[in-house]
Amino acid sequence: MVKAKKVLAVLPKGGEAAKQPDYLDCLENALGLRNWLEKQGVEYVVTADKEGDSSEFDRHLPTADIVITTPFHPAYLTPERLQKADNLELVLTAGIGSDHIDLNAVSKKGKITVAEVTGSNVVSVAEDELMRVLLLVRNFVPGYEQSRGGEWDVPQLAKKARDLEGKTVGTVGGGRIATHLMKRLQGFDCKRVYYGRHEKKPMTELGIEWSQDLDGMLAECDVVVINTPLTDKTRGMFNKERLSKMKKGAHLVNNARASIVDTDAIVDALKSGQLGGYSGDVWYPQPAPKDHPWRKAPNCYMTPHISGTTLDAQKRIAEGVREMLEQWFQGKPFTEDNYIVREGELAEQYQ
Amino acid sequence: MVKAKKVLAVLPKGGEAAKQPDYLDCLENALGLRNWLEKQGVEYVVTADKEGDSSEFDRHLPTADIVITTPFHPAYLTPERLQKADNLELVLTAGIGSDHIDLNAVSKKGKITVAEVTGSNVVSVAEDELMRVLLLVRNFVPGYEQSRGGEWDVPQLAKKARDLEGKTVGTVGGGRIATHLMKRLQGFDCKRVYYGRHEKKPMTELGIEWSQDLDGMLAECDVVVINTPLTDKTRGMFNKERLSKMKKGAHLVNNARASIVDTDAIVDALKSGQLGGYSGDVWYPQPAPKDHPWRKAPNCYMTPHISGTTLDAQKRIAEGVREMLEQWFQGKPFTEDNYIVREGELAEQYQ
Repeated sequence: MVKAKKVLAVLPKGGEAAKQPDYLDCLENALGLRNWLEKQGVEYVVTADKEGDSSEFDRHLPTADIVITTPFHPAYLTPERLQKADNLELVLTAGIGSDHIDLNAVSKKGKITVAEVTGSNVVSVAEDELMRVLLLVRNFVPGYEQSRGGEWDVPQLAKKARDLEGKTVGTVGGGRIATHLMKRLQGFDCKRVYYGRHEKKPMTELGIEWSQDLDGMLAECDVVVINTPLTDKTRGMFNKERLSKMKKGAHLVNNARASIVDTDAIVDALKSGQLGGYSGDVWYPQPAPKDHPWRKAPNCYMTPHISGTTLDAQKRIAEGVREMLEQWFQGKPFTEDNYIVREGELAEQYQ
Repeated sequence: MVKAKKVLAVLPKGGEAAKQPDYLDCLENALGLRNWLEKQGVEYVVTADKEGDSSEFDRHLPTADIVITTPFHPAYLTPERLQKADNLELVLTAGIGSDHIDLNAVSKKGKITVAEVTGSNVVSVAEDELMRVLLLVRNFVPGYEQSRGGEWDVPQLAKKARDLEGKTVGTVGGGRIATHLMKRLQGFDCKRVYYGRHEKKPMTELGIEWSQDLDGMLAECDVVVINTPLTDKTRGMFNKERLSKMKKGAHLVNNARASIVDTDAIVDALKSGQLGGYSGDVWYPQPAPKDHPWRKAPNCYMTPHISGTTLDAQKRIAEGVREMLEQWFQGKPFTEDNYIVREGELAEQYQ
């Protein structure tokens, strides 16, 4: 039943972390798929070398039937690369997203299918968002820095520390991550609201207030969480003007995509106090350069892009990739939600 | 109706923070009580100077009818000081707790009443605990430090990052803070369990599993949160042996009292990896000296003692103190739960 002869995966070097067998999302541990694939006579090439024409990725691409890439260490599937990929039938995102794939070029090429492990890390990202909501509202990091720095100045910390109880948390977007976030906020006795063009049933069922007026919602929120994909409509959505619509001193969390906000406008708003704090794990570009302004901005609590790469998420992602490979080998369709492009046709949720 | 002629309060200097009118818990803003007390002809002395025989506190103590102290910047009411306090009838904790009061000496002296603002910051502390649970499980701080330090090493971070979903969180003690924590954990799809000598109805109603076997519970938990008062039974409860009963690499959160754990045993367990991380905001002594070993221990994410001093908590505390003063002046009893000592008799929950 197996049609594919060659699977090409791009994964980052795990180094020290790869010694842990549960650290799957790396070159060395290869999503835990090597034994299984090789037993079936499939050639499984895994590389971290993905930049430039002479990369290992480029050398193997023309003979690969299936390509697997992660959104965290992506091999960009450009029109030029797709041109060379004569055997390519299936592109799997080991995770969620397709920012690294030129979907127009894929569609033009014809029969290629692109799919992701939908839902594989929505819980991971939602939990991470809630952690950031709490640490911003409660002013955690300056306290931690005092503890490391030998200081003890409670008024300096407490004057900015609040409870989440009684505050208003709004999300921009009402999709799955937003729903998981709101579900987790249920016990906190805070007001919850979301902005979106369409009402979302799971949100309504949780009793979350729907707003069609973004600026109106922003004016009410003590914390805003961005939960929208990056599209032409959302790129640069949080620019200087939009930030000025927020309540003075409110907090902004962004684990979605960095380009939804204007990098410099965020720094200015933090410096002026218009933003009380900003926290997220997405940057543009990634990896973030050493001199990225968010690294040193005041009240800016960033991490590298890790919220969706917990060990638990890695396990779900690897299981999801394996399941889709099994289905593919057996000629069975994937779960509908996983499709991004199905034999050249853009899936409905991506149109 | 007013009996008291002189109220003596000990509050820390707010400095810069005192310029915010909502920063109540400081010398300058005096719990927001000055106008109200003085209008009633009560002398209201507020000082931060509380150490040594010649402190301002000691000078005013012999003529004070009521003393108000905070647990965060306490004037210790020792037997020697109580000896001098001839007019003293009422001691109010602006917050929760009586560690700073020698309750035996109070009882011996006779007619004194001691009370606290029960419940005033249980939500604040519970939210703070949940924040710490999340940042430990998700390995936040090393990621933040990479972002500040110009680094980008996802495997180094992700190899220790987990989701809370599916994990087991246990609290030692099943009182109000523990109940608020468990209520907030409800949306996270994790297993929740508590240890206590007695079953607690609010916990049972939330569906939290009760354990009477502390070591057995510790062996199951991915995160343990200490929520018990400091008593002769709990002092040093988390010593080297107890820590060895925990699951290897599990996390410990302690916003209760530092002396419930053994300072050095915590450091050793962090160094050996027996503890995956430790986080809390209570220290012994307080303020923590510059060379306190928790300041530099690995995976030790401390803050000064602020979890119960958010602006929201300060508001509830100030309102609670005012309410008790009103009741006292009118000869009315306090809410039963607020009593620690009632006219020399230790309250039931403190026996």
